[in-house]
Amino acid sequence: MSNVTQIGQLSAWGGENGKQFIHREIGAEFAGISVNTTEPGGEVPFWHSHERCEEIYIIVDGRGEFALDDEVLPLEPGTVVRAAPGAMHALRCLPDSAVPLRWVCVRAAGEALAEVGRDGTRDEERPFPWSA
Amino acid sequence: MSNVTQIGQLSAWGGENGKQFIHREIGAEFAGISVNTTEPGGEVPFWHSHERCEEIYIIVDGRGEFALDDEVLPLEPGTVVRAAPGAMHALRCLPDSAVPLRWVCVRAAGEALAEVGRDGTRDEERPFPWSA
Repeated sequence: MSNVTQIGQLSAWGGENGKQFIHREIGAEFAGISVNTTEPGGEVPFWHSHERCEEIYIIVDGRGEFALDDEVLPLEPGTVVRAAPGAMHALRCLPDSAVPLRWVCVRAAGEALAEVGRDGTRDEERPFPWSA
Repeated sequence: MSNVTQIGQLSAWGGENGKQFIHREIGAEFAGISVNTTEPGGEVPFWHSHERCEEIYIIVDGRGEFALDDEVLPLEPGTVVRAAPGAMHALRCLPDSAVPLRWVCVRAAGEALAEVGRDGTRDEERPFPWSA
C-alpha cells in the first residue's frame, strides 16, 4: 500500500467511468474521497443518503444543480455543499454547461473533529529538505 | 449555519492569505477541509503532524515537493498524498513552477470508514427535480 496516487489533470478526473475513488489507493482510514466528472446533461444515477456519514461536494469546474432533500442549489466553480447524515441528495451538470462538472466528494463519519480537537504538533525548527 | 459556501475559481483558491478553511462555513462535523494556493517558491510555514488525524493532500495544479518524514515526493497536477497520523510533513511549490500550487487538504479521524461501513441508502425511484 502506497501513500501516493495519481488522479491526473482536471480534464482526466474520474477516468473512463467518471468516478475515481482515491481513499483505498492511498490507505486512507477515515476519509472517503472520490474525484468525478459529469458531462453536460449528465447526472448521478440515483438519489442517495448516508445514515452516519456527512458528504461534502467541492465543485472545481462546470455548472450544475444540486438536489438536497427538497432544495435545488445552483453549482458553479467554487461551490461547496455539505449533505448532512440522512439528507437525500443528487447532482447534475447543466445541459448547457460550457465544460463538464469536475467535482470532489469527501465522506467522513464517526468522531466529530471538535472532539478529536487540536491534535497537531509543529516542528518549527526542522529545516525543509529543499532548504538544505 | 448554511450548508453551502463558495471558494471561487481555482485561481482564487485560498483568498488573500492562500488558505481557506471550508468545514466551519458549511457546518461539517467530521471532515476538515481547506483549499490552498502556494505561489512558486513558496512553502508552508513549518512541518507538522497530527496525533490522530490523517491528512490527504490533493494537488489540482502546479508543481512542487512534499516532505513526508524522510521522503521527498514530487507533486504535479493530480498527485494525491496521505500523511498518516504521526507523520511529519510539509510542502512547497517549486520556484520554477509555471503556475501556483493549488491544493485541497482533507483531515479526518476517529472512526474508520471500514467500521462505519456501508451506510448508504439509494432511492432509485424518486425523480430528479430537473426531470419534472
